[in-house]
Amino acid sequence: MSTMQPRTIHGVGLGPGSQDLMSVRADRLIRQASHVAYFRKKGRTGHARSIVDGMLAPDVIELPMEYPVTTEIPFHDPRYNALLADFYATSVARLAEIAETGGDVVVLCEGDPFFYGSFMHLYARLQGRVPVAVVPGITGMSAAWTATGQPVTWGDDIMTVLMGTLPEATLAEHMTKTDALVVMKIGRNLDKVGRALARAGRVDEAWLIEYAAMPQERVLPFRDAGDSAPYFSILLVHGQGRRP
Amino acid sequence: MSTMQPRTIHGVGLGPGSQDLMSVRADRLIRQASHVAYFRKKGRTGHARSIVDGMLAPDVIELPMEYPVTTEIPFHDPRYNALLADFYATSVARLAEIAETGGDVVVLCEGDPFFYGSFMHLYARLQGRVPVAVVPGITGMSAAWTATGQPVTWGDDIMTVLMGTLPEATLAEHMTKTDALVVMKIGRNLDKVGRALARAGRVDEAWLIEYAAMPQERVLPFRDAGDSAPYFSILLVHGQGRRP
Ligand SMILES: C[S@@+](CC[C@H](N)C(=O)[O-])C[C@H]1O[C@@H](n2cnc3c(N)ncnc32)[C@H](O)[C@@H]1O
Ligand SMILES: C[S@@+](CC[C@H](N)C(=O)[O-])C[C@H]1O[C@@H](n2cnc3c(N)ncnc32)[C@H](O)[C@@H]1O
Repeated sequence: MSTMQPRTIHGVGLGPGSQDLMSVRADRLIRQASHVAYFRKKGRTGHARSIVDGMLAPDVIELPMEYPVTTEIPFHDPRYNALLADFYATSVARLAEIAETGGDVVVLCEGDPFFYGSFMHLYARLQGRVPVAVVPGITGMSAAWTATGQPVTWGDDIMTVLMGTLPEATLAEHMTKTDALVVMKIGRNLDKVGRALARAGRVDEAWLIEYAAMPQERVLPFRDAGDSAPYFSILLVHGQGRRP
Repeated sequence: MSTMQPRTIHGVGLGPGSQDLMSVRADRLIRQASHVAYFRKKGRTGHARSIVDGMLAPDVIELPMEYPVTTEIPFHDPRYNALLADFYATSVARLAEIAETGGDVVVLCEGDPFFYGSFMHLYARLQGRVPVAVVPGITGMSAAWTATGQPVTWGDDIMTVLMGTLPEATLAEHMTKTDALVVMKIGRNLDKVGRALARAGRVDEAWLIEYAAMPQERVLPFRDAGDSAPYFSILLVHGQGRRP
């Protein structure tokens, strides 16, 4: 045991939500894994876990990693960061120990792991301790523009990706200066995002895509969004660049 | 025959180049297709075609679509656009006829079809004539940041995607104002892109990724790029946003 080489931990992109939109490599790794880890909120199934329903080996060991905070502590409270850092350290210790004793660990990641994903926080802490490999995935935004039935960028269109958590003025400035636009993390920021879009004069070009590539997928003009949007929502403005 | 419903033409994202990075849906459609179409330059195999080597049905009918121009006519010459428009119209007529007479056509698309892809020019012309469905894919940029072994965006980082074909001043302005940066279509624009990056003061943060997810994959600091870069190259600057 003492000379055992640690196994590679795989951070695997699941794609946007439909099982057949994950890569062939992801599909194979997930079906073969002895251990499958994923984030979830306490008391929930976990969205990543539900995407792989029916794919896991019968004797798989599941390792849910439950977020210690949701809304109890405000986001800007320093305790929030401390609690999260602690949670990531504990999760990493658990996964590394399994890899060091010969288990095949796959960490399930929504979309592409390196694109605004939570897996990155484990990844940064696992590096130098056990080998880690990342499998890219189809992003939520790719599924979103596919759902609209219109290409997102043509010719030399500029595309900007913004998070709804940014300040309104920052959002508005970048919305003004881009051709194609993607805004993620809309949820509670819907009002602010809408005001920024209005300041940029682009409300009429914008679409809201909810649950892209999932059974509840919905595409609507942003102006019809109403006053709430689910966590899985993306705002999209298509580029209009050169086309022969 | 006259009452036959036309079949759906599928524009299928192949992902960045490695066969096992295409989606399970793409894999299935490609293996089952009676007709497979793809763009290529005259006298070449075609990059998209080479990705699916060994996957096609034994009796598949291949439909290479050969670009009428490469470098003979300058890009800004109006004849360039006219020639291309003509080429797309002819290609569309051929594909639509096959679908209308019961053939299953898959069009092979590098990366994600709706993200700066050539398929969009067929798609726009096929709409309203025959049903068309698009399968999203892992983009070249996802493979590029995965190859660097570093997440591209954290927290509320802003990400901007630029094409190397843009004017130097436009490139420099947007390079200055973003956190994470992706520049595609580097090839002949390498010098200009490098000058813009220098104006933005970001040369030392930048990476060049050639042939991401292909056998010749190479990751190097942008400052070591030398004086040429292949068509399949991406410039990347990682965001450094908030991380607990
Ligand atoms: C923490 S980020 C994770 C992004 C993910 N790693 C990816 O590659 O798409 C979560 C945000 O992604 C967006 N998102 C991801 N998948 C989505 C989907 N299938 N439909 C709609 N939005 C999605 C939403 O804006 C959500 O708030
Ligand atoms: C016409 S665009 C097509 C983009 C494609 N639809 C996608 O989703 O990635 C071609 C440019 O994409 C970039 N690219 C695409 N795949 C790549 C890869 N595997 N490695 C490096 N660059 C790639 C290069 O910058 C290239 O000039």
